[in-house]
Amino acid sequence: MIKRPEEIVGSLLTIGDELLQGDIPNGNSHHIASELRSRGFRLNRIVTVGDREEEIVDFLSKCVTECRFFIVTGGLGPTDDDRTGSAASKAFNRPLVLNTDYMSWLQKRLAERGLAWSEQLGRMAHLPQGATKLGWEMAGFFIEYENIPCYFLPGVPHEMKTLLSEVVIPDLEQRFPHRMVYTKHILRVQGLMESEMNLQLKDLSLDQIGIDIGYLPQVGENWVTLFVTGESRSQIEEKIKKAEAQIIPRLGPQHISGHNDECLEKVIGQQLLRHSWKIAVAESCTGGLLSHKITAISGASDYFDRGFITYSNQAKMDLLGVPEQMLLAHGAVSEPVARAMAEGACRQAKADVSLAITGIAGPTGGTPAKPVGTVFIACVSPRKNVVEKYLFGGNREHIQESAAQAALALLWRTLSDDPNLHCH
Amino acid sequence: MIKRPEEIVGSLLTIGDELLQGDIPNGNSHHIASELRSRGFRLNRIVTVGDREEEIVDFLSKCVTECRFFIVTGGLGPTDDDRTGSAASKAFNRPLVLNTDYMSWLQKRLAERGLAWSEQLGRMAHLPQGATKLGWEMAGFFIEYENIPCYFLPGVPHEMKTLLSEVVIPDLEQRFPHRMVYTKHILRVQGLMESEMNLQLKDLSLDQIGIDIGYLPQVGENWVTLFVTGESRSQIEEKIKKAEAQIIPRLGPQHISGHNDECLEKVIGQQLLRHSWKIAVAESCTGGLLSHKITAISGASDYFDRGFITYSNQAKMDLLGVPEQMLLAHGAVSEPVARAMAEGACRQAKADVSLAITGIAGPTGGTPAKPVGTVFIACVSPRKNVVEKYLFGGNREHIQESAAQAALALLWRTLSDDPNLHCH
Repeated sequence: MIKRPEEIVGSLLTIGDELLQGDIPNGNSHHIASELRSRGFRLNRIVTVGDREEEIVDFLSKCVTECRFFIVTGGLGPTDDDRTGSAASKAFNRPLVLNTDYMSWLQKRLAERGLAWSEQLGRMAHLPQGATKLGWEMAGFFIEYENIPCYFLPGVPHEMKTLLSEVVIPDLEQRFPHRMVYTKHILRVQGLMESEMNLQLKDLSLDQIGIDIGYLPQVGENWVTLFVTGESRSQIEEKIKKAEAQIIPRLGPQHISGHNDECLEKVIGQQLLRHSWKIAVAESCTGGLLSHKITAISGASDYFDRGFITYSNQAKMDLLGVPEQMLLAHGAVSEPVARAMAEGACRQAKADVSLAITGIAGPTGGTPAKPVGTVFIACVSPRKNVVEKYLFGGNREHIQESAAQAALALLWRTLSDDPNLHCH
Repeated sequence: MIKRPEEIVGSLLTIGDELLQGDIPNGNSHHIASELRSRGFRLNRIVTVGDREEEIVDFLSKCVTECRFFIVTGGLGPTDDDRTGSAASKAFNRPLVLNTDYMSWLQKRLAERGLAWSEQLGRMAHLPQGATKLGWEMAGFFIEYENIPCYFLPGVPHEMKTLLSEVVIPDLEQRFPHRMVYTKHILRVQGLMESEMNLQLKDLSLDQIGIDIGYLPQVGENWVTLFVTGESRSQIEEKIKKAEAQIIPRLGPQHISGHNDECLEKVIGQQLLRHSWKIAVAESCTGGLLSHKITAISGASDYFDRGFITYSNQAKMDLLGVPEQMLLAHGAVSEPVARAMAEGACRQAKADVSLAITGIAGPTGGTPAKPVGTVFIACVSPRKNVVEKYLFGGNREHIQESAAQAALALLWRTLSDDPNLHCH
């Protein structure tokens, strides 16, 4: 009888005061979670505690029986703040015993390097009864507790990564050969709020075919994420196709700008290339962020010609030919100036398409009529010319980011008017 | 009797499948841990669970009584995978009730934007009995449980950060005025490798006065971080002064560009303001990143006039007056072109100071003579004119980032030649 694939769920405990104090980000947990997932394992929780033995004992005893495997990182070194070995001994009720093989190896190694043996180092050779040493060159051991494999790894990232890929994952794969395959698939959605998407999609029952749906708001766009579980890679792809066939018509294909890593600047680049159109950009309050986004894509020189960062009124007049009279009559943050900036950029650069942004990024410079966050965005193209007004919230950084993102979305909508340009 | 400072310990629960699956790093927990620590609070544990209500209920009930305050992030949106409000209701045994004020506000807000009300959105207005809404513009609420303050914050990073700094930390500071003080103090170091810094500082024994020292490499600069514990703000400041008096002479004061949040673009802005100098920027391979960095600083309009993103040769000729002959003879990525770009930017903008960058960000476009990562940076100023050649490693993003950072450092060194301009 063939065993059916099943979901293998584990827990992760990361130990270290430096994590609780925010001195360093918990890169280990991100790495372990992501590596496990791509191999068909899932974490049900990640717990971080400090270098206090009773906290470690507490979590080891509480959590170990609620999962199929357990990974612990940190607290395995030779110093007094390394309490993991002793905590495991207490939690699993296995006395610490001397691993004589490892002790001899350690002593030999030190002697080779002309270093003295110390009691302190001897601590590393004491492991809970029944434990197997993992990797001689570094801290780490393995122990089975009520049939649950428990891997104790060092907190030093490159040592942890080595043991994870060379020992832990191969061992897990051998223990649990019939497990599910997981994939995350992202749909990038423009112009719909999270709640609207949810409303359109709430009555889908994708969980019956092994798909969890999630919503991840980004700056200026929202993501629908499909977490797909299947028995094989090809089954997964089949499921994604089926799910998209239900999701895309409900959201409206005109709202989907791309999948996975297809950010707007990438999609726009492909659209411009397809038309052999050149783009020029004129920026005031975003100060170069929009041009930077466009040129962050490799190959942008094939369609991006130049950008004008016209922070002062004088610069808008000199470089883009915005009339002084217009600046005086309407102010730099206005619909006519945004349009004149975009037209000027197109004309000066002899480009086919242009985007212009003018607004108030704050925190100063707002007025009752034009509060901080007011931004006008203009798009000139052979297809049509548009100016849109926005009111963005948040701090300076967020307003700049939102404005650049909205400009990309405006251009994308303009270029996508031709239905043949849609990505599906 | 004067109360002695004490340690105020809290717990953090972060919620989201995307964290357990390693889709995104847990930046929220790093930010919260670090912000709390610098205000004199300590976390005893950080727990991450997925969007499963029973897991959230379980941890809320288990952990809440083991700390002095509790922070939860994530799962507060209007969608079906947002389970935190309902979980809090169960864990604390407080039924969900409609907050009519917030409901009216939400409805009014949607109407203003011409959007329809939905039942779905109504979920966000249901809070556990006794809860106070935090911030109207975003999800979040506060509840006291057995005298323990519990803050429920959105998972969206900029919303979480806003509520943390504007609501949570001020409230905690008021509740616990007598606490130990922790501070992280950063020295920003230019032009020294991590190993050189370590060599210069290794024999300092700052731990005797309650200071831990750390090294954090950044793009283009390195940080020495001091983790300082004390009973009062003034004692901490005294300790930092003592430590700096030992550290700065060893590293050389000419290598220190600032402290804490004094990034190069901020320091340069102050230098330019002090001289009443205007700056113009010309960029090729960084495509706007340098201008964006400079204009990310609030008030940049007082010294930043304009930026030229001259991606094509034609743009370099049109906007900066780079001679065609020079481009043909030396290529766009060359010392004379970098200099001509900086001179042209200064001249066209009538600026006092200018920076120009031209290089190969890759991954394509490299040659044996000018491999990917080759970048020329020119600085023109009333003090002196310089062109420097660099060879940066890494991918496109890293090369662009390194080049922009190196340009800022070049300008900072130029403007700092006057010893009175040093920041200490």
